[in-house]
Amino acid sequence: MTQTQGATVLFIEDSDEDADLALRSFRKHGLKQGVKWIDDGQEALDYLLGEGKYASSPPPLPKVILLDLKLPKVGGLEILERIKADARRKHVPVIVLTSSNQTVDVERAYQSGANSYIVKPVDYTKFSDVIGQLGIYWLGVNVANDTSNL
Amino acid sequence: MTQTQGATVLFIEDSDEDADLALRSFRKHGLKQGVKWIDDGQEALDYLLGEGKYASSPPPLPKVILLDLKLPKVGGLEILERIKADARRKHVPVIVLTSSNQTVDVERAYQSGANSYIVKPVDYTKFSDVIGQLGIYWLGVNVANDTSNL
Repeated sequence: MTQTQGATVLFIEDSDEDADLALRSFRKHGLKQGVKWIDDGQEALDYLLGEGKYASSPPPLPKVILLDLKLPKVGGLEILERIKADARRKHVPVIVLTSSNQTVDVERAYQSGANSYIVKPVDYTKFSDVIGQLGIYWLGVNVANDTSNL
Repeated sequence: MTQTQGATVLFIEDSDEDADLALRSFRKHGLKQGVKWIDDGQEALDYLLGEGKYASSPPPLPKVILLDLKLPKVGGLEILERIKADARRKHVPVIVLTSSNQTVDVERAYQSGANSYIVKPVDYTKFSDVIGQLGIYWLGVNVANDTSNL
């Protein structure tokens, strides 16, 4: 089985506007390289599980997953639950990045094994700062599991 | 049941030297307030579960737990497993902060539900920077579950 070149960050977000803001922020903080953006829940699952169009050439697991909750086809919580129930994939940090600050969403995300939960700031400068801090922390400070490239 | 005043950060570390470095770093980054340091695994479990000497006055859960792996009486991995198997406590982020960069430790920590894994830098300046970034991220960027004070 061949592998396609993998992304460092898998960014799962259906809003073009939010994705554009985030990708600009990644670029500003020197993190653009290696960010793979997918705007559909089913495709994201296929990417992570090596199924569907990724079956013939499964990508290596990313170092970190940024996950919106409201997604077409398959919702963010379902993706989270699938990854965290999978012994070969549960070590990949999943950071929920959403506009929802509702307690029920925060609680369900943590109960389902989210590593971290971030509410997207509405203000662009703050949003950009958060993306920068997130990148520094998860790509610079945190130690990933070496098996992430299995 | 009365509650004792709780800590924002529960810092579980048996090395006096590492604890001293970390507490100085917390102070430097304005994070000293609300850090509770415990140097023994059994006492840390008692604190988190409201047992032993904390039974009569269980402290509220911290916003984040920093956990060394090598601890007297009860090891860090056992504490991690107990917290993550407990439906009322599993939402509290547990950041492993250890001198071990061995793959087996990284892997077991993530498999047991660690939210993040950090290897203590040997150099003091870098160690202090890491404590600062950790504080910014987990106390500033990350959204905790509101039930953490239950």
